[in-house]
Amino acid sequence: MDHAAATPVSKRARRAMDKYLSKQFYNPSAIYKEGQDARRDLENFRTSAARMIDASAKEIIFTGSGTESDNLALLGIFEMARQMENIKSPRIIISSIEHPGIKEAAEEVRRRGGEVYLLSVDEYGRVDPNDVARALTPNTVLVSVMLANNETGVIEPISRITRLIREEKKKRGSEFPYVHTDASQAFNYLKVSAASLGVDLLTLDSSKIYGPKGAGLLYIRTGTKIHPIMFGGGQEKGLRPGTPSLSLIAGFIAALSDAKKDRESESSRLKKYKKDLIDGLVSLLPDSILNAPSATAKDKEESLPNIVSISVPGMMAELAAIRLDKEGIMVSTGSSCGILKDNAGTGTVAALGRPEMKEPTLRFSMGRLTKRGDVQKTLQAFKKVMQL
Amino acid sequence: MDHAAATPVSKRARRAMDKYLSKQFYNPSAIYKEGQDARRDLENFRTSAARMIDASAKEIIFTGSGTESDNLALLGIFEMARQMENIKSPRIIISSIEHPGIKEAAEEVRRRGGEVYLLSVDEYGRVDPNDVARALTPNTVLVSVMLANNETGVIEPISRITRLIREEKKKRGSEFPYVHTDASQAFNYLKVSAASLGVDLLTLDSSKIYGPKGAGLLYIRTGTKIHPIMFGGGQEKGLRPGTPSLSLIAGFIAALSDAKKDRESESSRLKKYKKDLIDGLVSLLPDSILNAPSATAKDKEESLPNIVSISVPGMMAELAAIRLDKEGIMVSTGSSCGILKDNAGTGTVAALGRPEMKEPTLRFSMGRLTKRGDVQKTLQAFKKVMQL
Repeated sequence: MDHAAATPVSKRARRAMDKYLSKQFYNPSAIYKEGQDARRDLENFRTSAARMIDASAKEIIFTGSGTESDNLALLGIFEMARQMENIKSPRIIISSIEHPGIKEAAEEVRRRGGEVYLLSVDEYGRVDPNDVARALTPNTVLVSVMLANNETGVIEPISRITRLIREEKKKRGSEFPYVHTDASQAFNYLKVSAASLGVDLLTLDSSKIYGPKGAGLLYIRTGTKIHPIMFGGGQEKGLRPGTPSLSLIAGFIAALSDAKKDRESESSRLKKYKKDLIDGLVSLLPDSILNAPSATAKDKEESLPNIVSISVPGMMAELAAIRLDKEGIMVSTGSSCGILKDNAGTGTVAALGRPEMKEPTLRFSMGRLTKRGDVQKTLQAFKKVMQL
Repeated sequence: MDHAAATPVSKRARRAMDKYLSKQFYNPSAIYKEGQDARRDLENFRTSAARMIDASAKEIIFTGSGTESDNLALLGIFEMARQMENIKSPRIIISSIEHPGIKEAAEEVRRRGGEVYLLSVDEYGRVDPNDVARALTPNTVLVSVMLANNETGVIEPISRITRLIREEKKKRGSEFPYVHTDASQAFNYLKVSAASLGVDLLTLDSSKIYGPKGAGLLYIRTGTKIHPIMFGGGQEKGLRPGTPSLSLIAGFIAALSDAKKDRESESSRLKKYKKDLIDGLVSLLPDSILNAPSATAKDKEESLPNIVSISVPGMMAELAAIRLDKEGIMVSTGSSCGILKDNAGTGTVAALGRPEMKEPTLRFSMGRLTKRGDVQKTLQAFKKVMQL
C-alpha cells in the first residue's frame, strides 16, 4: 500500500538493463564501433521515450531522477531568464502542493533573488486556472504545476492552465511564461501527451513506474531556452553532463512502455479497489476526511486510481503506520520524499484549502503488487490498529 | 585499450546490485521495516565507502556520477562563499588539465560573477605547488586539482599542495581555501586516502572502477561549508535530493572494494604492459612525444600504470583511431568526455607546457580486460595503420 514511494523494477526492465552492464558497457562518445553502437542505442531510446509522450526525440533530455528533472526545469529556466536584460528578478509560479523537488528548488530561486508565487489550492488540492492567470506578471517566466499529486492523487487541470497562458502570451506578444508539469506519479494511470497538455517542460521518473531508480527525463519543447544546472562533457545537448547510463535508460524505456501498455487495465482494476478501500475507511471512521475528489465524493473523478489519502482528527499517524506495518500493511504518512524535513511529511495535506490544517494523514497507494484481497486485509488491519 | 572511457560492471558488483532492483526496492525514507532496512543498508554502504578512503561515514555524499560530484564541489563551495559577507567575488583555482566536469563548472562560476584562475602545467602536465601558493588571494575559496589525469595519466602532487595551503591558511587565520581533488581515474591504481591527501573534498566515480554508471560520491570533510546544487526531499544531508538508488550504490561499493583489493596486483601487471607499449611505440615512431612522465623517461614514475598518451606530429589522430578499430583495437583521441565539444578532445594535451600545441594525440588506456598479448597486437595494428 505504498507504491507511490517506490516500485520494484519489472522483469522486462531488468532484462533490458542487463545487456548494458557488462557487455555493451561502452562510452557512447567513443569513436570505435562499440561506442557508436552505444550512441545509436541511446538515440533509439530517446526516440522511444519521445513517442511515449507525443514529443520528438530532440526534445528529450535523460537525467538521473524526477527530482533532477524538476531542478533542471526550475533553476534552468530561472538562470536563463536572469541573463535576459529585459527581465528583472524573474518570477516562478508553483502550486503549494508541489513535490519537494519543485518546492525546494523554488526556495533556491528566491535565495538567488527571484520571485516565487505559491498558488493556493481548494479543499481537494486543485489549482484554479484563473488563479494562475491572476498571478501572472510581466516578469513571470515559469509556471510549474504537477499533473497528479504524490500525496493525495489529485489531478491538476494542466490543459486549462496552458490554454489560458497561451492566450495571455498572445496578448502580450511574449514567449513567457513557460509551463512545466511533473508527471512522475501520473504516468502509470493517465495519458501523458506533451502536445495535448500544451506544456513546455515535463518531468518523468523511472522509479515510480517500475523502472530502476537513478533515471528520469525532462521533456523540453523545441525552442525553449534553458540553462544547465550541471556542467561537463557536453552530453545530452549540454544540459546533463556525465556518461549516460544505457543500462538505466534501457530499463526506464522498458518501464515506460509497459506502463503505457497496462495503463487502462491497471486503472480500471485499481479503481475498484480504491472504491472498496474508501468505502471501508469511511464506514470505519465516519469523521475521516478524504484528501482528494473521488468516485464517492459528489465531484467528478479527478484523482489517480491508486492513491487514497485520509485525514483522521486525533489519529497518531506515525504510530498508526508503525502498527499497520506490524500487521503486514505498508503505508506512508504524507509522502516519503518530505519525511526527512521537519513538518514536511504532510506538506500537501497541510496546504489544502480547508480550516483543519495539518490533520494527521495516512496515504494508501496501490499498484501492480496490490492483489484482490489486499484491500480487505488493509481494512481489517486498520480496524485493529485504530481499535475500532 | 580504452578503459579510461568506460569499464564493464564486474560480476561481484552486478551480484550486489541485484537484490535492490526487484526485492529490496523500498524507499529508505519509508517508515515500515523494509524501508528502515533499506535505510540501514544505505548507511552501511556509506560506512564502507568511508573506510575505503580513510574518512568517516558522515563525510560521504552519494551522487549520480563523478561529474555531478565535481559540480557539487565547485558550484557548491562557490555558492556557499557567495553568501559570506566578507568575500566579494569568490575565486576558484583549477589546473588547466581538469576534467570537463571541473572546467565547465568553473566557466559557470565565472558566468555567475566569480573569479577563475587556471594553473598552467609543465610539459608532463604537472602542477607546480608553488604556482598554487602564488595564485592564492584573500578571496580564494577553493583549489581543485585532480589526483590523476584521465587523458595522460599524470599524477598531481596533491599532498604537497594541501601542505602548502595548510601553512598559508594558518598564517592568515582563514578557513579558506578548501582543496578538492577528482580521484576518479586514480582509484584503481593509487592509494586514495582523504586523510593523507589532506583534501577537504574528493570525487569518486563508479563507472571508472568497474561499477555501474550512474553512481559517484563526494567526500566532504566534516566542518566544510557547502551549498547544494539540487534541491528536494532532504536526502544525503540535504546535499543530493532524490530517492537514492541502493542498487547503484551497492554495485559502486562492491566495485570500490574490489578495486582497492586488486590495486597492487593490477598496478604491477599493467606497469609491465605499459613499458612494453611505450617501448614499442617509441621504436615505431621515434619522433613521437609521450605526454606523461614514465619509467622510460628520466623522471621518476609519476603517472598511472594503465594510460599511455602519445602525440605524433602529422598524424591524423581520428583516422588512426578509426583504422585501429578496424584492426580490433579500441583507442581514444584525447578523452571521451570532451569529444562532444569543439576542440576539447585533446584539452589536456593542448594545455601541456611545451611549444608543440595541439599535437594529434592517441590515448591507450589498459585495464582488467587487457591481457598479455594485447600490447603486441596493439603495436602490430598500429604499425599497419600508420603504414610503418
